[in-house]
Formats: sequence, structure tokens, C-alpha cells
Amino acid sequence: MSFLRGSLNYVWCTTSVLGKGATGAVFQGVNKHNGEPVAVKTFNQLSHMRPYEVQMREFEVLRKVKHDNIVKLLAIEDDQEGRGKVIVMELCTGGSLFNILDDPENTYGLPQHEFFLVLEHLTAGMKHLRDNNLVHRDLKPGNIMKFLSEEGLTIYKLTDFGAARELEENQQFMSLYGTEEYLHPDMYERAVLRKSVNRSFTANVDLWSIGVTLYHVATGNLPFRPFGGRKNKEVMHHITTKKLPGVIAGIQLTENGPIEWARNLPDHCQLSTGLKQLVTPLLAGLLEENQKRMWSFDRFFNEVLNILNKKTVHIFYINRASSIEIFMESDDANTLFHFKEHISLQTEVNPDSQLLLYGEEHLEDLVAPNTSIKGYPETAIFNPIMLFSIENNNVCLQNDQELPKFPSFPVGVSVENDASMAKLACSVGHECKRRIINYTKMDTLINSGIEKLIGLLKTTLNKLLQKSRYFEDIRSTIYELADTLETLVSADICHDEVKQICMEVKSLKEDFSRILEPIQQLNNRFCVEDILTREWKTSSRDIKSPSKHYSNEKSKHLVERLRDSWQHLLRDRATRSLTYNDEQFHALEKIKIAETGKRIKALLNDIVKPAIIMEAECLADWYKMAQTIYLQAQILEKDLSSYEETLFELRDRLIRMKEEMKRDNTEMKKNISCGFKEPSISMLKKRIEISSDVKNMLEFQKEIRSILQENEDLIKMLQNVAFDDGNSIENSHL
Amino acid sequence: MSFLRGSLNYVWCTTSVLGKGATGAVFQGVNKHNGEPVAVKTFNQLSHMRPYEVQMREFEVLRKVKHDNIVKLLAIEDDQEGRGKVIVMELCTGGSLFNILDDPENTYGLPQHEFFLVLEHLTAGMKHLRDNNLVHRDLKPGNIMKFLSEEGLTIYKLTDFGAARELEENQQFMSLYGTEEYLHPDMYERAVLRKSVNRSFTANVDLWSIGVTLYHVATGNLPFRPFGGRKNKEVMHHITTKKLPGVIAGIQLTENGPIEWARNLPDHCQLSTGLKQLVTPLLAGLLEENQKRMWSFDRFFNEVLNILNKKTVHIFYINRASSIEIFMESDDANTLFHFKEHISLQTEVNPDSQLLLYGEEHLEDLVAPNTSIKGYPETAIFNPIMLFSIENNNVCLQNDQELPKFPSFPVGVSVENDASMAKLACSVGHECKRRIINYTKMDTLINSGIEKLIGLLKTTLNKLLQKSRYFEDIRSTIYELADTLETLVSADICHDEVKQICMEVKSLKEDFSRILEPIQQLNNRFCVEDILTREWKTSSRDIKSPSKHYSNEKSKHLVERLRDSWQHLLRDRATRSLTYNDEQFHALEKIKIAETGKRIKALLNDIVKPAIIMEAECLADWYKMAQTIYLQAQILEKDLSSYEETLFELRDRLIRMKEEMKRDNTEMKKNISCGFKEPSISMLKKRIEISSDVKNMLEFQKEIRSILQENEDLIKMLQNVAFDDGNSIENSHL
Repeated sequence: MSFLRGSLNYVWCTTSVLGKGATGAVFQGVNKHNGEPVAVKTFNQLSHMRPYEVQMREFEVLRKVKHDNIVKLLAIEDDQEGRGKVIVMELCTGGSLFNILDDPENTYGLPQHEFFLVLEHLTAGMKHLRDNNLVHRDLKPGNIMKFLSEEGLTIYKLTDFGAARELEENQQFMSLYGTEEYLHPDMYERAVLRKSVNRSFTANVDLWSIGVTLYHVATGNLPFRPFGGRKNKEVMHHITTKKLPGVIAGIQLTENGPIEWARNLPDHCQLSTGLKQLVTPLLAGLLEENQKRMWSFDRFFNEVLNILNKKTVHIFYINRASSIEIFMESDDANTLFHFKEHISLQTEVNPDSQLLLYGEEHLEDLVAPNTSIKGYPETAIFNPIMLFSIENNNVCLQNDQELPKFPSFPVGVSVENDASMAKLACSVGHECKRRIINYTKMDTLINSGIEKLIGLLKTTLNKLLQKSRYFEDIRSTIYELADTLETLVSADICHDEVKQICMEVKSLKEDFSRILEPIQQLNNRFCVEDILTREWKTSSRDIKSPSKHYSNEKSKHLVERLRDSWQHLLRDRATRSLTYNDEQFHALEKIKIAETGKRIKALLNDIVKPAIIMEAECLADWYKMAQTIYLQAQILEKDLSSYEETLFELRDRLIRMKEEMKRDNTEMKKNISCGFKEPSISMLKKRIEISSDVKNMLEFQKEIRSILQENEDLIKMLQNVAFDDGNSIENSHL
Repeated sequence: MSFLRGSLNYVWCTTSVLGKGATGAVFQGVNKHNGEPVAVKTFNQLSHMRPYEVQMREFEVLRKVKHDNIVKLLAIEDDQEGRGKVIVMELCTGGSLFNILDDPENTYGLPQHEFFLVLEHLTAGMKHLRDNNLVHRDLKPGNIMKFLSEEGLTIYKLTDFGAARELEENQQFMSLYGTEEYLHPDMYERAVLRKSVNRSFTANVDLWSIGVTLYHVATGNLPFRPFGGRKNKEVMHHITTKKLPGVIAGIQLTENGPIEWARNLPDHCQLSTGLKQLVTPLLAGLLEENQKRMWSFDRFFNEVLNILNKKTVHIFYINRASSIEIFMESDDANTLFHFKEHISLQTEVNPDSQLLLYGEEHLEDLVAPNTSIKGYPETAIFNPIMLFSIENNNVCLQNDQELPKFPSFPVGVSVENDASMAKLACSVGHECKRRIINYTKMDTLINSGIEKLIGLLKTTLNKLLQKSRYFEDIRSTIYELADTLETLVSADICHDEVKQICMEVKSLKEDFSRILEPIQQLNNRFCVEDILTREWKTSSRDIKSPSKHYSNEKSKHLVERLRDSWQHLLRDRATRSLTYNDEQFHALEKIKIAETGKRIKALLNDIVKPAIIMEAECLADWYKMAQTIYLQAQILEKDLSSYEETLFELRDRLIRMKEEMKRDNTEMKKNISCGFKEPSISMLKKRIEISSDVKNMLEFQKEIRSILQENEDLIKMLQNVAFDDGNSIENSHL
């Protein structure tokens, strides 16, 4: 039966229930003037029996709050048929976090980016409440709504202020509100165990609930789980009150069995190692029964802000084919050093052996040691900084956790049990899909890392070649300089040193060819012939690469099938009694689930995983080659640098020598013209140097005279020869 | 009422109808053994009244065909309750092309990539039929199914072989099959107009139907549309038979009005200009009543293959902020030339003025003039080659077509009309969304183009600077060489030339600083200070950039709302009579459609479009600056090249000169020792050259003698000076 209800500006239909609680229900309604969908909260008889001031509290609180992370109040109006006030709020089409966590996709917790949003939004909403001295008193996933904005953004918002009230910082309250699993142990003690009746509580009860909620969101499970669940109240209280500081979960796996305490988030949690390290202390600070040790609101807000303000840097570590995340403070003075240390902690590659590539460039060429993390290039999961270990050229994949088992259905039709089994199958299906997607990502990033390293090597080798060609131009010019100087030497004095340098210059050519040859060879092999690319293509040719074989799409398709069947069985459960026909199809869906489960498991274990194992082996072989070339190029780079030094040093020596020779000449002439009438001391010293060369000069004069004589003889011969030819010679009268 | 039916291996439910026809219905069924969903075609009483051989034909044809683009036969089984044979086929979850074209999203035709798939798959399926001598005889969108593979790929498949039969190439048939709008005019004449009873037909009738289908898919409309539609049979026949060759559509807009003929695809069609140019002749070849002019199957298959084999190159033309596509033959010997010509045709930028960038590099640096198009870099809509006109630094946006009007609902509730109006509103909403997405794409690509041009300019300027530094090293070494040679000159003959070169070498420094200075300035401004990036950021700061303001997401959200309301009104139409409550909500949906329509129109016209107009203005200003720098850099590049030439030319001259001087020395000595006893002819020639220099040599001798005399005087003076100092001088007895 569908009933139309209305208030001044809104209508709703009693069949479109969004949720029901003790004091009323929430319906999807519509604005009469623009058709805009809204949520309408109505109150039942029971709620009207509460004291008037308690009834008014919710309206007052709602009128007071105004924040992006609190569900917006649109109006408080009267039900047109006199059923009392109704609260009209914006509609959160994403449902509650409770529904989201209940989905088999999130059995092992929300994905990291979604966890981040919850953390940010829940904290911001809570901060707004605290700033207004409000206590919520019923925080839990069911009261956190997912709002999908028109811009396509997800915003989590706090809702249900039915238990909220004003409460100053150190004020206390006595009344009992909240939901068992999320209750602060003190409240739990009084409300659930009905002990210590006179206890009163502070706003801190909200912090505990946030802790439980965040643990639930991060892992898909409650942190404190007595055997048998909710009904095992004493053990529940024991766990929450007896746990040691730093413990964030306690689980009892057998009846009356021991509690298994945990100080870390479970392996199946989908947060990265880097983020887990930040979130764990946060949870420990919130899930702390001891009032002295428990974090204050301010501490909580600051620590969360601190986490949110960190910059995430995505890294893909080739030698383990795994993605890691580094969270960095934005005001670090020594960023590069700490960045490498963080990497070292997560990878065991020591800072000196980290080859970090962004695009096809060394990270160190893009950032200075003190560049703040904000100045680092933007990374993303599929655009990470690539990390190669220079020391270690092995590739070892990390071991997977064991895959949870697909449930097997009992033979008969049991609508209740079948739906649960189907949901479990979906959970496992989603886990398979996540692993397949992860392997596909590894495949993509391995290939991308290889491409980038090849790019770097090519650029390096090209630069080396270009540089060496440039040096060759310089060298040959210097050679000419030396050669000229050597020619000049016969007309000069400082004979031996020039000869010495000229020999050195000549030997440069040989030195150089010892560097140039390997550079050219490497260039030919790895730039022109592109051996590294070919090598990878050849060796990886037979791999059924998941990214090229639509593995992600197949896994999505198969999970969709599982979900369709689960939905079918859910509908069957809602119907309760099935007709004969329906039972036939019900049975077929169970077969389909079993078959689809087998297929997705086979896709993961028989196709995708073996492909990645094979790829990692090829990668190891390939990297051994690439690493060698990288190291060779590094050595050649050093050789070329020291060659460069020698080159320019020789040039400078040659120039110095030439300048000396010129100066000597000039000074001599100057000395003559000034007549040496009053020699100064420096002049005197110079003279001494000069006089020691006088003998050489005289001998040189003699030599020239004999050449002149030879020349004259020669010229005469030449004149004769020229005339013998009978050709007219200009100026032949000579 | 739901009835369970079954055959040996399959079950289906009579409520899950996928489609109904004259001879039977198709249901969604399930494989009993693995739960796999299938399509089951059952036959009705009427079908069993057909001759046995006709009934068998469909089975025979189905057993004969086996192709990816024909719906796969899984089994032919007997209905377990004796209702005859059933055909079990693979399930095409995407529905038929008829349903797809009926969606308001596709009112103006399918998007290009989807059109391409239909063209490829329809042709391949048809080719398989022809290869097996089969004629389909009822090709139309309703018989083309969309199959979504597990890999997430779309495959279109031919189905419904109820009218199919074997027919050799030139064989004819008499029976009438098919669907009016898609009928070949000859068949139409006999079947619909009931004229010329004795006419027979060939397999070509399928070609005509393919033509009509492809036009429908490309435009969302039928090509031949008499006023009043289907019932206006005579005009329909008139249009199809009287149309001129090359005409691909004929539309009668008023009763008994003239036919508007079209030789081109309409503007609203979503194919790119480049693709339209290829598809139009194809349609004209198929929609040709004249048997002689109509294309043969072979021609059709070849032409389609030709289109599909072309490589698509995506280009973004900055000066018009529009995407264009170039379709290139893969075996073109002169690709770059033709590529630029193709671009020129679509943009009016002549080949010499095309600045083509891929990444941050000139296209010409990535491909040679004769590189085949397969060797061109892979482009995509969001990774195009960027085209800047070097000649023209204006930016002019293309004018939009007028936006179709949102319908306004009449006041009363009319379930029939309201649903149609709602669908129309969705069509317009989708068109708004497409335009918003296009503007957002323009925004993204403008920014990407700017980034790439900046990247190119930076690399160019950096290279120039590096090169000029290298030349400076060379120049200074050459200078030293010249200087040394000049020093040497006093001991040699060819005095003037050396002096000349040395002067030239000295003047190089000045020449060079005239090039180096602007290079350094440009580098400082555009690489170090990054003025171009800053300039763009500053000038575009106030633009509400659609890509950064979630315009696409908003438009998607609004269109989803329109569609939700449309679906609501569709359900109301199916219900026929609405309760009072339902009527209230029905009215609200109409309000919602009107409001949502206004909002999406406002988003397009008041926010997104003005933002892009403003962005284009900023772009024009920015490009004027960037273009100037580009041209400056080009000039400097040329200057540097000619400087390089001069530099190395001078070096070579210097070296030659030095060598000559050395050789002269050596030759002289050699000539003297060999004594010229038997001069050979070459020796004689040499002598003539030498004799012309004899006079100079004699004068030179004289000069030297006088220098020697001076020297001797000088040496004497030096000796005196040295002895005056009273220091011991070695060999002082001189």
C-alpha cells in the first residue's frame, strides 16, 4: 500500500523508505516546486512521548549546525495530516556507510582513497560539532551518509542528531545513547551491563565511537569481537577495558577462548603500508579506555590534520614489482634525504643504491636536496616514481596472502542461507578481482618502468656521444694550436716544455678513442639498434600479459555475474516462499555462482598469476642487462669528465706558453726603445733572464744567415728554371 | 503470469521476452548445467503453417554460418511440451541497434567510434553471408545485435535469418521479405505499392538495406522521409527512384511539398569532417536504385576495407580550438607531404605554415618525409598532434549550430504525450551534454597545446644556449690558434693573409656576442623566469575553466536526472491509468524535467560557452607572444648555423695556412737537396707558380737581412746591458 504524505513544500510516499529507527523513519521525498529529491524524517508515536525539551533538542541542534560534512537541513515543517513536525534534509544518494560496509565489495575494508575521504570528512564534521559545543552520542557507520555531489564528488556527512545535545568541554552528561559496538566502555558498562549507575560521561564518548568506526571502515570488521558476537557482553567489556595501550583490536575466536590482541591493522586491510603506519597510532589513541591516556579532541584533530597535510608520493619498486607510498611532511628542510630514508625503510634499498626515475629523468635532476615535498613532481598510482635498486639486480615478487575460499552451497533450497552464501561468494569474487587488478597494474608498471629506464639510458648515451663529439672538435683545434706552437718553437726559446705539451696533446687522441669507442658501441647497440627494447619484447613475447588480455575487464564481468546472482537470491529471500518455477531459477543461480566462482579463481590462479611470475623472471634477466649498461654509462661519464679536465688544462697551458712567448718578444722590443737608461729592479731581473738566452739568439742569427744564403742560391736556381720553360714571367728583369 | 518452459538443456520463462515478431518470440533463457544466460527463439502457430522447407531454411542457414559478427547458434532443441523446435543462441546483452538508435542519447546518430564498429562488423558479417551465397533479405537496425564480450568489447552481430536463403551471385528470387523503410525500391514497389508483380530481385537488395541502415546509424534518421512518414508510400517510392546519383537523402517537410535533396550528411551527425568525406560516397554507392550504378558487393567490401585500413591521425588545431581527424592510406610513399595537404584542406593552413607538435617535439623530427603513416606516433583525441599556424596568430572559434529547443509540457496529465516530450527533453539534454563535453575537451587541449609549445620553445632555447657555449669554446681556441699563427708570421712569408684571417677571427667575438646576447636574454625570460607559463596563468586566472569546474560531471548528472524522469514517465505510460498519488508524482517529474532542462542549458550557455570564448581571447593574446618568440628562435638558429659555418671555415683556413707554411719550409729544403736535375712536367708547373713569387721572395730576403742587422745591434746592446749588471753570464765570451 502506498500513501502520499505531504508538508507545506514537500511530498513523500510511504513506500520510499530510506531508513527506520526507534523514534521514526526517513523517506525519500520531493520538493513540490522544482521536483528536487529530498530526505524527510518523520516521527512516530513513541517519539512524541519523550519530554518536550528532548523532542526540541534535535531541531535546535540541526538549526545550529551548518557544515559541508553534516547533512544539510532544508526545512522543518508540519505534516499536513497532523502527524507532527518533519525534518527535511538534503538527500544523500550514496546511502550510509553501514550499507557501504555491508556490501561484499567492502568485506575487507574500504579502498584507501575512500578511507581517506571518510577520515577527512568525519573529522571535519566532528570538528564543527565540537566548535559548537555539541556532542553527537551516536556516531557509527549507519549515521555517516555518502553524498554524491553534482560535480561527481563524494562527500561523507554526519547525520541523525536525535541523541545529540550541547555539552561544554568539561561538562558531563548522564543519559544513555548510542549503539553497543561503538559505545565507550564506560557507557557500555552502564547501558549494556547495567552496572555503576552513577557514572557520568564527557564528550569523549564520541572519540571512542570514531575509533571503532574508523577501524571498521579500514578493515571491514569491528575491532572488538567476542565469540558469538553482541550477546557475549561480559567478554566485550573485558576486551575493551583490559586491552593494553597500543592494542587496537581484540578477537575471541573460540567459546571462552583467549583474546587475540592486535597492535597492527590486519593484512587484508586495503591501506598501503605507509598509511597503516600513520593510522595505527591514531586508532590506538582513540580506542583507549583510560581517560588520561585517551587522546583529547584537539590532539585528534591535529593528528588527523597532520596526516591529511602530508603529501603522498607513489613509487613503484621494480625489484619487487610492488607499489609503495611515501607520506611526507610538507615542511621538511632535508626532504630528499628523508625521502630516501623512508623508501629505504619500506624497501630495504639503501639510499645510495636507489635509482629513482620520474618520467625518463633522474629524480635528482628534478629536485634539489632541500626542495620541499610540494615541489616534487606529482605522482599517481599509474604515474609513480620508478625505483630500481642499483646494487641488487634480482626481482622477487611478494608472497600473496592465502585466498579466502569460495563457499559451497548445500544441495537443497534454503533462501536464508543461500543468500548469505552468495554474498560470501561475492566477497571472495571481489577479492579475486582486486588481486587480478593488482597483477594487471604490476604488469603495466613493469612495462612502464622498463620503458623509462630505456629512455634514461638512451638520453644518457646520446648526451655522452654528443659531448664526446664536441670534445673532439675542441681537441682537434687544440692539436692545431699545439702544432702551430711547435712550429713557432724553432723561432723561440722555451723549446722543451712546448715539445712536452705537444706530445701530450698528440697522445690525447689515443686516450680519447679509448673512451669514444665504447660510447659509440653502446650508442649503436642501445640507441640505434635499440637492443634493450628488442630484448624485452622478445623475452616477454610469450607472456599472456594481463593488461593486454583484458584481465581486468573479465574479472569485472565475472564479479558482476556473481553480484547479479546474489541479487537474485536476495530477492528470493525477500519473497520468502518460492513458486516451483522460481525454485528452478533459484537453483540455476546457485549453479551459476559456483561456475562463475571457479572461473574467476582460475583466471587469477591459472592465467594472471603465472603470467606475472613469468614476467618477473623475464624482468630479472632484462634488468641484469640494463643495470650493466647503466653502470658502464656511469663509468664512461666519469672518464669523459676527467678527459674534459685534461683537455682544458692542456689548452690553458698552451695559451699560457704562447702568451709568455709573446710577452718576451714585446718586452724585448720595449726594453730596446726605452734605452735602459735607468733600469729598475724588476727590469734588472728580467735582463738577467734575457742575457742567459743571448748565446742562443746569436746562434739563431747565424742559422738564419746560412738559410738566407741557401735561399739566395735557391732563388737563382728558380729564376733559371722558370726562364728555361720559356714562359713569360712577370718581373722577369729580376 | 509467468510460465516456465524448457528444452533438453535450457529453460526460459515466458515473462523474460527479448523481442517478438510475426513468426515467434525470443526469450532470455538459461543453460541448465552452468546457469549461462542465452537467447531462445520460439515459433508460434503461424510459423508452423509455412511450407516445411521454408521452416527448415532458417535452421539450415544458421547451421551454415559461423562468424564473430553473426549471432552464434548454440543449439536447436525441441520444446519439452511439444511446441516445436526452438533455436538457442548466444545472448546479446546490449540489445538491438534499433533500441540503441531509439535512445534519446542517439537522436542525432551514434558517436563516431560506435559508427565505426557497426560499419566494420556489419560488413564483416555480410561478407561471411556472401561468401556462403546467402542473402539475408531483412537487414535493418532491429536485426543487428550488440554483444558485450567478457573482455568488455562491443561486437555487433547479424541475427534473424528467418528471411534468409541461399542465393548464388547472379541468381534471382521472387518472394517478398523485409521492412518497408529499408526495402530496395524494386522490392518496395512490389511489396508495398503492389505494382509490377513479375519483377525478381538479386542479393543486391541487402546492399540497399545496408545503405539505409548506415545512414540511420550515422544520423539517427532515415534517409528517405516523405511527409507523414510510412503511410505516404507514393512519395516514398518517388524519393527513392527519382533521386539523382550522389544524393543520399530526400526529405519532404510539408504535405505535398517539394523534396529537399541532400548530397551530404547533416550537420548534427556526430562523425568528424574527415570521416564524413569517406562515408558519403559509400552511402551514395549503396543508395542507388540504378542497377548499373549501384555498387557491387565486391566494390562495397573493398571500399569499406579501404576506409577501415586507413590510419586515423588526431589533430588539435589551436587557432580554431577544434579537433580534426585525418584519415591516411597506409601505403603512401610521400606521406608527410600528403598529410600536410590533408590538414591544409580541413584547416586552410598551408603546409609551410603548419607548426606540428607531437609531445614537445616537431613532428618533422619524429618522422621522415617518406615514413609510412604506420610509423607515425599514435594519436588519440586527448593526445593529438598540435597544429599551430605560423602565419596567423589569431584564434577564432567555430560557430555552433543552433541548439534544439527543450519542449514545454502542456498543463494537463497526458501519459502518452508526456513520455514523448520527456524523451525529446532527454535528446536535447544529451546534445547539451555533448557540447559541454566538447567545450571541456577544447579547454583541456588548449592548455595541453600551450604546455607543449612552451616545452618546445624551452628545449629550442636551451639547445641554442648550449650550442652557443660550445661554439664559444671552439671560437676561443681558434682565436688562440690565430694568435699563435700571427706570432709565427714574422718568421714566414704570406704575411697579409694571416693578418687578414686573424682580424676576421678577432671580429668573430663581436659577431658572436650579437647572437649570444639575445639567446641568453630569451633563455632568461622564457626558460629561467618561465614568462610564457606565467603569462598564461595570469591571463587565464579568471576563466571558470570547464575542465577544472567539473562541467562534464555536472552535465552528466543533469542528463541522468532527465533520464530518470523520462523513465518514470515511461513507466507511467505503461501503467496507463494513474492513481491520484501517482498523478501527483507524475506532475512533479514534469516540473523536474523543465527545471533540469533550464539548468543544463544555463550551464552550457551561461557558464561553459562564455568561459571558452574568454579562453580563446586569452589564447589569441598569448599565442601572439609565443609565436614571436618561436620566430625569433628560428632566426637565431639560422644565425648560429651561419656563424658555425664561418667558424669552422676560418679554422680550416688557419690550418691550411699553417700547413702551407710548414710545407713551404720542408719543400724548400727538399728542393735544394734534390737539385732540380730532371724536372718532370708537374714539377715544371710548380716552378712556374713559384717563379711568380720570386720577386716577393727576394724582397723578403732583403727584409730579413735588415732584421738580422737590427738583431745584431740589439744583441750587442743586450750583451752590454747584461754585463753592466755585473752578473755572471754563461758563454759571456761572445
